[in-house]
Amino acid sequence: MVPHGSSSGRSADFHAHHAPVGALASVTAGRQLGRSGPSCESGRAGEGGLMLGYREAAGAIRLLPLFPLSASDRERYVQGGGAGERALRPFAAAEVRRDYGWATDRWSAGDLVAEILTPVEALPDPAHAPLAAQRDAFVPAVLLRLTVSNPSEAAREAVFALNLPDHKWLPTDGLAGMKSRAGISFACADADAYVFSAFDLESPLQRRWPLQPRFGLGSVAGVAVPVPAGQTRTLTVAIGFWKPGIVTAGRSMAYWYTRLFSGVEDVLGHALGRAGAVAAACARRDAELAGSGLPAERQFILAHATRGYHASTQLLDDGGRPRWVVNEGEYLMLNTFDLTVDMAFHELRFSPWALAGVLEQFACEYRYSSRVYDPAEPARLLPGGVAFTHDMGVANTWSPAGRSSYEVDGLDRACFSHMSCEQLTNWVLCAGLYWARTRDGGFLDRHRGLLGECQASLLNRDHPLPERRRGFMQCEDERCRGGGEITTYDSLDHSLGQSRANGYLAGKMWAAHVILAELLTAGGRADLAGASLAAAKRAAAAIAACADPASGVMPSLLTDPASAPIIPAVEALAYPWAMGLHAACRDDGPYGAMITALRRHLQAVLREGICLYADGGWKLSASADNSWASKIHLCQFVAETVLGVAQEQAAAARADRAHADWQRLGAADHGVSDQFTAGTAKGSLYYPRIVTAVLWLP
Amino acid sequence: MVPHGSSSGRSADFHAHHAPVGALASVTAGRQLGRSGPSCESGRAGEGGLMLGYREAAGAIRLLPLFPLSASDRERYVQGGGAGERALRPFAAAEVRRDYGWATDRWSAGDLVAEILTPVEALPDPAHAPLAAQRDAFVPAVLLRLTVSNPSEAAREAVFALNLPDHKWLPTDGLAGMKSRAGISFACADADAYVFSAFDLESPLQRRWPLQPRFGLGSVAGVAVPVPAGQTRTLTVAIGFWKPGIVTAGRSMAYWYTRLFSGVEDVLGHALGRAGAVAAACARRDAELAGSGLPAERQFILAHATRGYHASTQLLDDGGRPRWVVNEGEYLMLNTFDLTVDMAFHELRFSPWALAGVLEQFACEYRYSSRVYDPAEPARLLPGGVAFTHDMGVANTWSPAGRSSYEVDGLDRACFSHMSCEQLTNWVLCAGLYWARTRDGGFLDRHRGLLGECQASLLNRDHPLPERRRGFMQCEDERCRGGGEITTYDSLDHSLGQSRANGYLAGKMWAAHVILAELLTAGGRADLAGASLAAAKRAAAAIAACADPASGVMPSLLTDPASAPIIPAVEALAYPWAMGLHAACRDDGPYGAMITALRRHLQAVLREGICLYADGGWKLSASADNSWASKIHLCQFVAETVLGVAQEQAAAARADRAHADWQRLGAADHGVSDQFTAGTAKGSLYYPRIVTAVLWLP
Repeated sequence: MVPHGSSSGRSADFHAHHAPVGALASVTAGRQLGRSGPSCESGRAGEGGLMLGYREAAGAIRLLPLFPLSASDRERYVQGGGAGERALRPFAAAEVRRDYGWATDRWSAGDLVAEILTPVEALPDPAHAPLAAQRDAFVPAVLLRLTVSNPSEAAREAVFALNLPDHKWLPTDGLAGMKSRAGISFACADADAYVFSAFDLESPLQRRWPLQPRFGLGSVAGVAVPVPAGQTRTLTVAIGFWKPGIVTAGRSMAYWYTRLFSGVEDVLGHALGRAGAVAAACARRDAELAGSGLPAERQFILAHATRGYHASTQLLDDGGRPRWVVNEGEYLMLNTFDLTVDMAFHELRFSPWALAGVLEQFACEYRYSSRVYDPAEPARLLPGGVAFTHDMGVANTWSPAGRSSYEVDGLDRACFSHMSCEQLTNWVLCAGLYWARTRDGGFLDRHRGLLGECQASLLNRDHPLPERRRGFMQCEDERCRGGGEITTYDSLDHSLGQSRANGYLAGKMWAAHVILAELLTAGGRADLAGASLAAAKRAAAAIAACADPASGVMPSLLTDPASAPIIPAVEALAYPWAMGLHAACRDDGPYGAMITALRRHLQAVLREGICLYADGGWKLSASADNSWASKIHLCQFVAETVLGVAQEQAAAARADRAHADWQRLGAADHGVSDQFTAGTAKGSLYYPRIVTAVLWLP
Repeated sequence: MVPHGSSSGRSADFHAHHAPVGALASVTAGRQLGRSGPSCESGRAGEGGLMLGYREAAGAIRLLPLFPLSASDRERYVQGGGAGERALRPFAAAEVRRDYGWATDRWSAGDLVAEILTPVEALPDPAHAPLAAQRDAFVPAVLLRLTVSNPSEAAREAVFALNLPDHKWLPTDGLAGMKSRAGISFACADADAYVFSAFDLESPLQRRWPLQPRFGLGSVAGVAVPVPAGQTRTLTVAIGFWKPGIVTAGRSMAYWYTRLFSGVEDVLGHALGRAGAVAAACARRDAELAGSGLPAERQFILAHATRGYHASTQLLDDGGRPRWVVNEGEYLMLNTFDLTVDMAFHELRFSPWALAGVLEQFACEYRYSSRVYDPAEPARLLPGGVAFTHDMGVANTWSPAGRSSYEVDGLDRACFSHMSCEQLTNWVLCAGLYWARTRDGGFLDRHRGLLGECQASLLNRDHPLPERRRGFMQCEDERCRGGGEITTYDSLDHSLGQSRANGYLAGKMWAAHVILAELLTAGGRADLAGASLAAAKRAAAAIAACADPASGVMPSLLTDPASAPIIPAVEALAYPWAMGLHAACRDDGPYGAMITALRRHLQAVLREGICLYADGGWKLSASADNSWASKIHLCQFVAETVLGVAQEQAAAARADRAHADWQRLGAADHGVSDQFTAGTAKGSLYYPRIVTAVLWLP
């Protein structure tokens, strides 16, 4: 558990997602006096407030500052004036300590400890796992524990409440709790719980309407339990999510959890019944991270990233078959492929079936076949081959087959252009990672033909004429109609944004060739592997050759020596390495010249003014102030583990602190985020992709 | 059609609802450069923008100012500076004329005429009517017509678009249109329509991405059709609403329209196919109102009120049986009974089955039986009887049987207390109106027992001991637990807010007694009618007796001569009158002394400083600055038609203009509203109840 709060020197004032798996839902909390609480399908923090605390006998209600205050209230509370005028007394920021673990987020203030528990466990394959295991793994609920000690001589009440604008509350059936039509619910298992709804929190706790604790029009609802003098009591509450029926457009699907549970009360009851087991599992996972040997700031980043990933996950019921979706954070795009490939490292650990499921969806529904052209002669279409879309839709809205929600035809290397070549590499890279992890022969068999098509398409996107192949992407997809493709770094300048001749993408093509050779061989098509190995050699040679002989610095565009250097030149080494193909990544291996050149490049650019910010954080491109946290962490893994390029200890600590503070300070309102400009999150908020940090773990 | 806009002297800058029947949905439009457009289940105006206009050949896009502009854009457009800098050029307020009819809302500006068509027709009973009639009446869609003339020498395009934040658009199947997962859709029937979605309107109309008019991430979507030089073309668009599946909590129900239509495309196709018939029906209804002889301001109010009523209607599918709900405007309470009784006059004209359905729901599910107490001795519970709840739930969330969402036990004559006695009168009054209109013998048979219970309960709520009955409510419902009941005027002072001894409620009790005698006799229980007739006489005597002999003014509280006078002392005369029981309302009838006294009272208080505002508008209570438009119009009917108290022509015209301007200016942001403080809407926004104005019609 990484301590946060004033005494630790780390800000505790930031939002984190607290999410079940597969419900596209989160109980977002942490920003002081900011909007928070449960939300579904929104890609933002909740719009309400999470009220956790206790009512003292004298009437004061002490709460963690995890709910919003109006401007006038805020002034009174925060400036300290007139706190006695009203019953509601949030703890001041300085009074709150926050301990942040992989699975537990814990706030301590006054006589209160509040924890939100979000287990980090291996997930059973929903296509095959027994119902009981699935109910445990995919229950759409989040557990909270409030422990209130009462050293006073009068009774207190431990209090949990939600303030959700526009929500109206109905009692849960047979449980002490409330539920709303919008699909939010909560309950506790305490027989002596006082369950209420009202316009505000003070009225029910002061028993202003003692004869009727439930008011049908109130948007505040909660539970309170007595804490006798001299005792300590823990109140466990489950917050549930429930969206029944068809929830998608374009293709009609429901949430998978509606197959596993009969309704709101089943969800809440199951979650509460598992509270002990969940708390123990969370404690084990917290201890694992604490004992990992990772620096505290990296522990924080990994824990924060894991929460963001879970909040974006969505397990759907596609006519009886499970369908896995990771939403693209605030943008809510479905299974954005250039995120899938980065998040694969997390899924290989916890849910390899999820990665396979996304690959199947791309193979069956979101692939296309297209011709290519040399940008020098855009009207002449040449043989191309298979490619994959950027995503599968947006905001629960499935795009037509073969089309993403994002890509627009006819753009020239601008945001929303096609990413055909990069997504093609991503299918191959993910397939390789999945196969290496599982040795799933059925997968290889099923996609033998597609792997051959991928090989042909990759070669043609260099150039359809073998004699004109140079080892990197030269030809554009016909969907660009004379324009040009982009990479996942869509909002960057051409150093990373342009696909053609890009060193970053050349690396991914190299990795795809290496992996294709491996997969083709494993699949019984060793006869085809040679072409991929030759292509890998060509790519490696092109990359190695572009380095400036004097400085060792490589340009971002292999064909433009003046183009700015980029860190992600090294990124693609992660894929063969993670498959165990270490030889491919060694100086004495078949691509040794490239490896040596990449190491020299990285060492040359990891300097302030080139690819380091003044705060020590990594700057992906020397020419653009827009750095992706997920990619930084991925490249840190490559640098440290694959290339053996370690920053000096002080510099490394400064970088870790900078990257952690980008999240805590620069993305305080948004939960874990990806795109930072000078340390402030400017896009890709509330994002799942940062789980590349899992690569840091042994 | 009542003209609005600068040349007419009437502001055109106000929101109006444009709603189908039974979908709890509206296309709200009219506020200049304000948020507008379609919304469902929200109780507010749409959060988006409705973009209607045409693109000139030179590129300028001329639009009606019915969509929101950012603050900076607004400055540029409204101040007139730099309009040439961007393509989007809304018409200035002074250029727009708005003609407001009962069924047509028409804007004219430049070469454009735009109309929103919302038919006002008798509604078939969904329990019995043929499917075809139901599909016509309850299609969840609103039709718009844009007529663009092109006197220029170059082609133009007529343009319809919606800008709905957070909406993502999919193409409609087999129709030129788009639909969103949130249930909003639109389409036209033009084969040459250009259908688009984008981040803004300019990009698609300027063909910036010519190769792909549909962009999956855009929240703006629309259609455009060419208007050749020298020609005029009409573009007809249907905006559809579609919320499938269970949409309620507490009790599980779907929208009735999901039984009538197979999906979004069926809705849009049906609406478009009926465009000619709908336009003709709307024109007939517009002409009917224009020819009614009503002053123009009253025509406006009635048309505005009708739109508000339709926007709050919701026809649900309760396990195969239709269930009618009118939502309480912005508050979204279901079938608030003290609104039902006022809206009954509209429903008797257009949908008597709807009124009967609400009465059945109250009789079966939202009635209760309670004891009463004399406030002098609150601990001693006495026999009471049947009563009805204030409402049936809120925001698609059904309350438990016998409980409303609004009422709270144990309050003393404060907002959210019980309205037991008033709602009891409301069931009787509505039943009387329904029976008089339909002579539905089955209804009388079914509720014979309940009518007897209503009689007993009404008598007991005066006093359980016959010798202590005084002709008005003396005893409080036990749910008040020592406190006291309120009336529908819940946010007023005791002059109208307190039930006990209230002259307004005494009038409704008198009317209920009169009507009960009628219903009991008609139902074959003439033996019971005598008790009601005696009670009616007692009530009339008490009301007549409270008038000040010198001035004729009656106090609001019959037991407190110092209490402020109120206009609604006369309100209840409307009910027997509307049933045809005119003798009960005549000076020479059985209650003649009361009638004479009420007329004298009304003439005495209808003066500025007492019950008239400085602008000539009616002030319901001399002691409170909070006037309900619905109740004013109801009392105007009683004054003019029942009591023959007509204001002088100039004063009447000032009053009508004031009441119309309260809506147009005081509620400009909200659509038709009910509660006004000094001419500004302060509550009960976006409201259905103002259809009491239908009583003005012959």
